[in-house]
Amino acid sequence: MKLAVFDDNRLAVVEGESLYDVTDAVPSHGSVWPPVFMQHVISDWAATAPRLSEARQGAPAIPRNSVTLRSPIPFTGNIVAAPANYTKHVGELGDRGVTAKGNSARDVGFFLKATSSLSGADEPIVLPVNSGRRFDHETELGVIIGRTCRNVRRDQALDYVFGYSCLIDLSMRIEPGRPAEERCTRKSFDSFTPLGPWIVTADEVPDPQSLSNRLWVNGELRQEANTSEMTVGVAELIELISSVMTLRPGDVIASGTPQGVGPVVPGDQVTIEIERVGRMTLNVVAAAEAAPRIF
Amino acid sequence: MKLAVFDDNRLAVVEGESLYDVTDAVPSHGSVWPPVFMQHVISDWAATAPRLSEARQGAPAIPRNSVTLRSPIPFTGNIVAAPANYTKHVGELGDRGVTAKGNSARDVGFFLKATSSLSGADEPIVLPVNSGRRFDHETELGVIIGRTCRNVRRDQALDYVFGYSCLIDLSMRIEPGRPAEERCTRKSFDSFTPLGPWIVTADEVPDPQSLSNRLWVNGELRQEANTSEMTVGVAELIELISSVMTLRPGDVIASGTPQGVGPVVPGDQVTIEIERVGRMTLNVVAAAEAAPRIF
Repeated sequence: MKLAVFDDNRLAVVEGESLYDVTDAVPSHGSVWPPVFMQHVISDWAATAPRLSEARQGAPAIPRNSVTLRSPIPFTGNIVAAPANYTKHVGELGDRGVTAKGNSARDVGFFLKATSSLSGADEPIVLPVNSGRRFDHETELGVIIGRTCRNVRRDQALDYVFGYSCLIDLSMRIEPGRPAEERCTRKSFDSFTPLGPWIVTADEVPDPQSLSNRLWVNGELRQEANTSEMTVGVAELIELISSVMTLRPGDVIASGTPQGVGPVVPGDQVTIEIERVGRMTLNVVAAAEAAPRIF
Repeated sequence: MKLAVFDDNRLAVVEGESLYDVTDAVPSHGSVWPPVFMQHVISDWAATAPRLSEARQGAPAIPRNSVTLRSPIPFTGNIVAAPANYTKHVGELGDRGVTAKGNSARDVGFFLKATSSLSGADEPIVLPVNSGRRFDHETELGVIIGRTCRNVRRDQALDYVFGYSCLIDLSMRIEPGRPAEERCTRKSFDSFTPLGPWIVTADEVPDPQSLSNRLWVNGELRQEANTSEMTVGVAELIELISSVMTLRPGDVIASGTPQGVGPVVPGDQVTIEIERVGRMTLNVVAAAEAAPRIF
């Protein structure tokens, strides 16, 4: 099943180019902040799935291009990210990057992104103004956790995955000659974690390590890899992360990016496509307001 | 007002050594996961505060020592943390630390801790077993955000604070001679962010930069400072963080630790006390289960 969140945090089942509004099948939905209805859907999936299927039957088709797709996880507790996870990406950023051989998640663990950086397929990527910095695209397979887990071994780990999304990890690059900002800061600007266009449940992705992962800027292919080239696969990432912390339903794992990382500027259009998962194109814009503290 | 969360995520107003159960004054409380009722309380505080005061009047006193105090923020989207924020702490860890002059939040921004690392005053600090690593205490003023904000200037920033708690930032130290793990990983083990014993609302802390901040291990004073010695004060931290990301009600800021950071081992008792905020003593224990991946 494909699950999308659209417009004012409504929930849809997606089939082809159509959405079917199933919001009313989630009694806890409501409009109260914070929007944690996806945690309710995911954590009680055995009961929720048949209700959503039933609601989909009676629902009219809504064309995808008539709605605004939001992050399919509107609110969550953690975005956990793997550094330097495709061999060919390692080292390509020179002194603008912190990725180097021996810096995979297996060596140095994970980092985190602010959960407020999540945005959706039809929302813009907003770059700070007046910063004079370089901002890069990174194309990644996003993994959505389905069940609470701690200390999971890798041969069981995929049982805890709810589904997958396309995930772009936007990053402000280190500037040679000035202090290297914390990676968390450089990657946590609002809208720096586009997720979507929807979640594809894990039953539709039998092997997360055999998916093509591509990204274009203004129609030009910039990153192209297969998840089979990941240094630390999804199952091992879950083993590793859950050795430190409890993963909970709705947590997002950004599984790392392949070679081809490069800059985006306002006016660009960025397209990400992951096999079996989906494809989305986002507009890059400049923030309307300058921040009091410019990084 | 002092607000505590206890036992099975019940909500209390605290006066002296007594708790008054006001759970029923929060209609949205419920038992459904994730527990975001504190976000409801905080984001609608003008309406909630009088309801809690009224409920407190009719409630019987519960002795503090008869309950289990939990994290006063049970679930949230972000824990944002300031590196190297008291001058005298900087450099004291030598090659086991990443703090150095020029590494304050003003220079390098913030880092993040997994929100799953939150625990309460009456819960143990659980250290991994078989790791052979050093785990350190760091005593910090915890700041709880009250209203959504982005691009706030420092002279307005304290208006967005809901309240304050004691916060211990537990950290696995870098081991000389092996790859330096990501700071996020070293600080995100479950129970590595004890918060409490309650939240003291901001009206009871007129100046967050004039509070004594102390920590003892087994009764021996290990850290002693005043928040007046912070390099980047709370207001400037909020300016700096909100220049990057939206801060939301219930988000937690760990404002950094002073000199005296040192190791804890299973069997230790750690006491933190912050003036006007509170005092709590936590037991340090070893995890019952070894993780598949030992850091």
